[in-house]
Amino acid sequence: MSMQTGRRVGVAFVGMGGAVATTAIAGIEMIKSGSNRLDGLPLAGLSVAGMADYKDLVFGGWDLNGDDLASAASGHGVLSKDDIEDGAQALKGITPWPAVGSAKFCKNIDGSNRIVAAGHREAVSIIASDLRRFQKESNLDQVVVVNLASTERWPDLSDPTLNSPEAFEKGLDSSDEAISPAMLYAYAAIKSGIPYANFTPSVAADVPALLGLATEMNVPVAGKDGKTGQTMMKTVLAPAFKARALHVDGWFSTNILGNRDGLALNDPNSLQSKLNTKGTVLDSILGYPVEDHLVHIHYYRPRGDDKEAWDNIDVTGFMGQRMQIKVNFLCKDSILAAPLVIEIARVLDLAHKRGDGGVQEQLSTFFKAPMVKNGHGPEHAFGKQEAMLLDWLGVH
Amino acid sequence: MSMQTGRRVGVAFVGMGGAVATTAIAGIEMIKSGSNRLDGLPLAGLSVAGMADYKDLVFGGWDLNGDDLASAASGHGVLSKDDIEDGAQALKGITPWPAVGSAKFCKNIDGSNRIVAAGHREAVSIIASDLRRFQKESNLDQVVVVNLASTERWPDLSDPTLNSPEAFEKGLDSSDEAISPAMLYAYAAIKSGIPYANFTPSVAADVPALLGLATEMNVPVAGKDGKTGQTMMKTVLAPAFKARALHVDGWFSTNILGNRDGLALNDPNSLQSKLNTKGTVLDSILGYPVEDHLVHIHYYRPRGDDKEAWDNIDVTGFMGQRMQIKVNFLCKDSILAAPLVIEIARVLDLAHKRGDGGVQEQLSTFFKAPMVKNGHGPEHAFGKQEAMLLDWLGVH
Amino acid sequence: MSMQTGRRVGVAFVGMGGAVATTAIAGIEMIKSGSNRLDGLPLAGLSVAGMADYKDLVFGGWDLNGDDLASAASGHGVLSKDDIEDGAQALKGITPWPAVGSAKFCKNIDGSNRIVAAGHREAVSIIASDLRRFQKESNLDQVVVVNLASTERWPDLSDPTLNSPEAFEKGLDSSDEAISPAMLYAYAAIKSGIPYANFTPSVAADVPALLGLATEMNVPVAGKDGKTGQTMMKTVLAPAFKARALHVDGWFSTNILGNRDGLALNDPNSLQSKLNTKGTVLDSILGYPVEDHLVHIHYYRPRGDDKEAWDNIDVTGFMGQRMQIKVNFLCKDSILAAPLVIEIARVLDLAHKRGDGGVQEQLSTFFKAPMVKNGHGPEHAFGKQEAMLLDWLGVH
Amino acid sequence: MSMQTGRRVGVAFVGMGGAVATTAIAGIEMIKSGSNRLDGLPLAGLSVAGMADYKDLVFGGWDLNGDDLASAASGHGVLSKDDIEDGAQALKGITPWPAVGSAKFCKNIDGSNRIVAAGHREAVSIIASDLRRFQKESNLDQVVVVNLASTERWPDLSDPTLNSPEAFEKGLDSSDEAISPAMLYAYAAIKSGIPYANFTPSVAADVPALLGLATEMNVPVAGKDGKTGQTMMKTVLAPAFKARALHVDGWFSTNILGNRDGLALNDPNSLQSKLNTKGTVLDSILGYPVEDHLVHIHYYRPRGDDKEAWDNIDVTGFMGQRMQIKVNFLCKDSILAAPLVIEIARVLDLAHKRGDGGVQEQLSTFFKAPMVKNGHGPEHAFGKQEAMLLDWLGVH
Repeated sequence: MSMQTGRRVGVAFVGMGGAVATTAIAGIEMIKSGSNRLDGLPLAGLSVAGMADYKDLVFGGWDLNGDDLASAASGHGVLSKDDIEDGAQALKGITPWPAVGSAKFCKNIDGSNRIVAAGHREAVSIIASDLRRFQKESNLDQVVVVNLASTERWPDLSDPTLNSPEAFEKGLDSSDEAISPAMLYAYAAIKSGIPYANFTPSVAADVPALLGLATEMNVPVAGKDGKTGQTMMKTVLAPAFKARALHVDGWFSTNILGNRDGLALNDPNSLQSKLNTKGTVLDSILGYPVEDHLVHIHYYRPRGDDKEAWDNIDVTGFMGQRMQIKVNFLCKDSILAAPLVIEIARVLDLAHKRGDGGVQEQLSTFFKAPMVKNGHGPEHAFGKQEAMLLDWLGVH
Repeated sequence: MSMQTGRRVGVAFVGMGGAVATTAIAGIEMIKSGSNRLDGLPLAGLSVAGMADYKDLVFGGWDLNGDDLASAASGHGVLSKDDIEDGAQALKGITPWPAVGSAKFCKNIDGSNRIVAAGHREAVSIIASDLRRFQKESNLDQVVVVNLASTERWPDLSDPTLNSPEAFEKGLDSSDEAISPAMLYAYAAIKSGIPYANFTPSVAADVPALLGLATEMNVPVAGKDGKTGQTMMKTVLAPAFKARALHVDGWFSTNILGNRDGLALNDPNSLQSKLNTKGTVLDSILGYPVEDHLVHIHYYRPRGDDKEAWDNIDVTGFMGQRMQIKVNFLCKDSILAAPLVIEIARVLDLAHKRGDGGVQEQLSTFFKAPMVKNGHGPEHAFGKQEAMLLDWLGVH
Repeated sequence: MSMQTGRRVGVAFVGMGGAVATTAIAGIEMIKSGSNRLDGLPLAGLSVAGMADYKDLVFGGWDLNGDDLASAASGHGVLSKDDIEDGAQALKGITPWPAVGSAKFCKNIDGSNRIVAAGHREAVSIIASDLRRFQKESNLDQVVVVNLASTERWPDLSDPTLNSPEAFEKGLDSSDEAISPAMLYAYAAIKSGIPYANFTPSVAADVPALLGLATEMNVPVAGKDGKTGQTMMKTVLAPAFKARALHVDGWFSTNILGNRDGLALNDPNSLQSKLNTKGTVLDSILGYPVEDHLVHIHYYRPRGDDKEAWDNIDVTGFMGQRMQIKVNFLCKDSILAAPLVIEIARVLDLAHKRGDGGVQEQLSTFFKAPMVKNGHGPEHAFGKQEAMLLDWLGVH
Repeated sequence: MSMQTGRRVGVAFVGMGGAVATTAIAGIEMIKSGSNRLDGLPLAGLSVAGMADYKDLVFGGWDLNGDDLASAASGHGVLSKDDIEDGAQALKGITPWPAVGSAKFCKNIDGSNRIVAAGHREAVSIIASDLRRFQKESNLDQVVVVNLASTERWPDLSDPTLNSPEAFEKGLDSSDEAISPAMLYAYAAIKSGIPYANFTPSVAADVPALLGLATEMNVPVAGKDGKTGQTMMKTVLAPAFKARALHVDGWFSTNILGNRDGLALNDPNSLQSKLNTKGTVLDSILGYPVEDHLVHIHYYRPRGDDKEAWDNIDVTGFMGQRMQIKVNFLCKDSILAAPLVIEIARVLDLAHKRGDGGVQEQLSTFFKAPMVKNGHGPEHAFGKQEAMLLDWLGVH
């Protein structure tokens, strides 16, 4: 168990009514009330000085859907009826703040609980004021923002607006279309001195303008795209194939899922963002390009939030002989994601407390496309990522 | 490519006519002749001072079956007709030396190419003289012994004969039945100052008597039970489940294989030896006992040397929710094993050259039940084993 | 929907507190109350004159465990909490009658709700009186007995007691140990003119003595061993391989399950009964012996009542080339079995009404080891079995 | 074994240099020479009066690639080196006749061995003269044409040219673009009184104009799209789910393959033709629309001609409970297809001999989208198709 600090940490989710956020909140509320165990929480059981306890987390956030969280959770089909009842008292009391949305960046997902703002600058100002109010009303020692909203389309990274803090400021003034909603949240948090993590494939803070701002303000940031199911397995298996010198000739990955994320990925633009973050992992670990690396994601309703991945891997071994490995992962997307989100929030808070700003590479193990400090390539191998995190935490 | 040392290293296999040994020998001969690539050789491509080159390996060994290696290889169905033709010149010229066998320790496997010896002491003396002759006739700088013979039944480890070098010497004099054939080879090698590795599940050198002798003589030893397919995957996956705090409720492992090893495992005593080395891996990595960890091995002829493993893993994650992972590995036993055997021989030779005697724990990654120095538990996690080996080799 | 006959049919289960029986009863009660659909009921939707409607079924039966059915169902983990609540009123009101048990025929399963009888003859008399009471008290037009009790060990079929009605009568008088509990139930039913089906692998009515009696009395009987998961798939796939002339070289079948049936099968004698009924299916369909047909069943608790089967099939096609098919069936044993049990009861009642006594071969599709009339081999091919049933029912 | 008729039947393949045709030809030649068994030939072993023996088949055909068949076969990687050597004498002697091709109907596939014709009419005339020459030079009793060429794009079926024999004749005169190469072959065969089968997904003879012509001329025709791997399994499994009243909620099918067919399917237009023939099978068998039926085909080079299918099926059973079946078929496309092509040719010849013209529905079992006589829906259930064929053959 982490040491009790008494420190109250607020976690503000972008996309608070979604399956991951409601699962995370219900889970922590049930830990508070004693009806949930610590299974699935990677850092449970470690003793790390200064890290907030699970019971000291407090939740808030934005969502285009304004339903209270008990209603929202019921709709996702992740939590059992019993669980929702257990967590109901807490969940019913929480309704998301109005959110920024843009059909240009994310189709298929909509809602009426919208920030009414004349432009980017006003939207940012409303977000920042939400954060101040949250901190004050909940009497928090620290707030952390985590983006869990649906995947946005890939922006034009060459746009000058995204490439320096100064240009970005001007872009805010002119409500430049290059700036996506996720970037508005990231900017508002960083500018307020509040750590920011991006658990989605959206680019968000991973542009020079915002990375520069985070360094300047010494605010911890991390991302992007939570590594839960298939890609996690990929980064676990590929280092072993490399260690055994089994040459990967092809890796065919297919996914079926039926939740709101799957629906959003039916928009080819959002899907492309997802595939961008999934694609380079293998080549990076193996040190050579895998010629037939195919990744497919399909919206398939019977599976609901229970995501299923099927991987077929073709390898060549000694004497040029061929072998196959097939991995079938029947997982639950939000169940895998929610505890990672919680740990990310706790680590970001700790980094801030330690005065450690900028990109937090030690969180790489939780991301498909880890953000890095100096332009060197990210570490994707699961075991090495794990070692990095334990080192940073001071756990031998 | 390893640095060329010009150093000639002889590898003497116990069970030289088996599928693994013939594959290893054919593969190296084809590397010498330029018709095999280095796929599957884990240490290929590393630059380690003093390590013998693949091309400087020379092979000898014992087998109860006296056929020349080209005939033996044809029978195993591992190598293609083309490969056997390519390696034929070398393979045809090699016939195994007469071997020690015992129906008490290994049923189902027999042969007529037997050492005729009045008792243990004489058998050991013949083995030692085989090794001297091999070194001299082949003009070798060093010889290494690797046991690849079929699995023996589990011995009575409490027998005093196996528990001190002195008692063991007396047991040799009295041809004590507690001493198995594999132990005779191990003793002969160690006593001759020759490094010894045990790639089989048999106990062999892993008794206090022989470990004591190896320490005393400062001879490198390693073992036991090569980690190729299902158990390798287990030691790759389990650390990831631990890192993600996914509680393993059950792990059901089944194997089908149709080669000589499979037939030997139809003897329940030999099977038990195999299951002994497979069983504790999971609990050791996870830090808790997996209550439903079942491992089954079945002799199934259609598969031949192509071994197939099917694993089903049940895990519990956040909110007590259950998930499943299924892994289906269509592998080739000897193709995975042969290159490991080669690397073990090269590392043992290097250890001997470095004056590093006793148990070589850095070879843990190649074994299901790694032998350890001081009675502390072995490291089973694949990533950590890999790091240990690279550290020892001096590769960053 | 079947035509409404108004005819009330009582189904008396041997093993009424088990997972299959409680699921069947709850399901029918929920159909009566409108909260269950007809999914999974093979004969739903067919219009067959004279067949009892699902809503006209009434349940009774014996069990060594005397708990009311709501308690029993809770323990099995098959029905959801909501389902048990829905069916609770009906289930709570039903408690099993005391049952006959014998540790000689079925280990691992025990209970205190036992018939107290001086010997076989008295036990039979109690069973028959239970049936009369059931019919009278529930005002039934007809009663049918279905055996769902745990698998008994395989009896000695050469024992003279089992080979003629006369010898069997004497065996009852002397409480002969050759007669198993399942046979006592079968005898009592048949002798009472009540149709009897055996859904378990136990031999029960499938001995000459009882088959003779059934023919003599013109009472419908059927069995044995319900065909639900893996064996059903086998009888679906094998005819296709035969039609395509794909030669089956090997078929490896493994099952994991964690329910009470699995526990009973941990007794090697009961397991043998199960494997006996599973084994011959393939050879019978294909017309040649499959040399490597292996079937394994393992008790594996994490799976509970959710049974999982993994099959690997090796076939040879044109040009002697080899292919593989793997089938992974994540099924729910009792959910598959319960509706079959219901249909068997309805068909037996109809057969009785039609005056069609003796072995009911048209029910072959529901059994792993179908009982047959004249010693000719049973039909195992799923499609042909289905056609036989539809023909008998008079459905085109 | 079929009865020897002495009757010589010529089989002319459209796409003779492809993997299926070369495999079929090599296989029959090896049967003639005694080095191939009858595995995989569905009608081997049946005694059917008048049906040509395998040894009495003679091969010819067209291909855009003019290489001799031994060279072509080497390139496909289906036959082993040994097999090609065995069949080499026969294969080397066969070179394809120049073929009709059109980049409009089939991208990605090209070749230089082309018919030089001023227009459709002349092309048809050349094809017909090829058939006459084949019959005469090879001294054949009968010729049959089977289309094995790469999949063409889906034509505009509403085009008047394709909807009456008269309009089609005019279209030939004007070289109407609505007429595809496959239609030219079909027309030439039918007009010459030669039976025609279409083993590809291309529409070919399945347009009113050509069906009308076949009826008029009383020429047997059959098609379309050979049913080998995944779709065959689908038509085997779906009837069983129906018989057991397991409601199919979703069926996710993915295929990976690396042969020339796979490459052709990288053209979205050809892929659509394939998906058209695959799509309706399930709904037709089950009697209701499967809401989530997804079928994907991916070009994945490591697999070569070894096609792999992975299916996940979600079903709902009794009490609304969900189950899953996963089928993984590691098959060899051409090895499954070649013997079907041979049987189709033998049956068409027999039909012609029997005077049975028009669509041959009894061949439905060999096709994904069986052609039918009177506009009624095709039979897709595998078992019923098999029964239809055996009935027609007169095998009880």
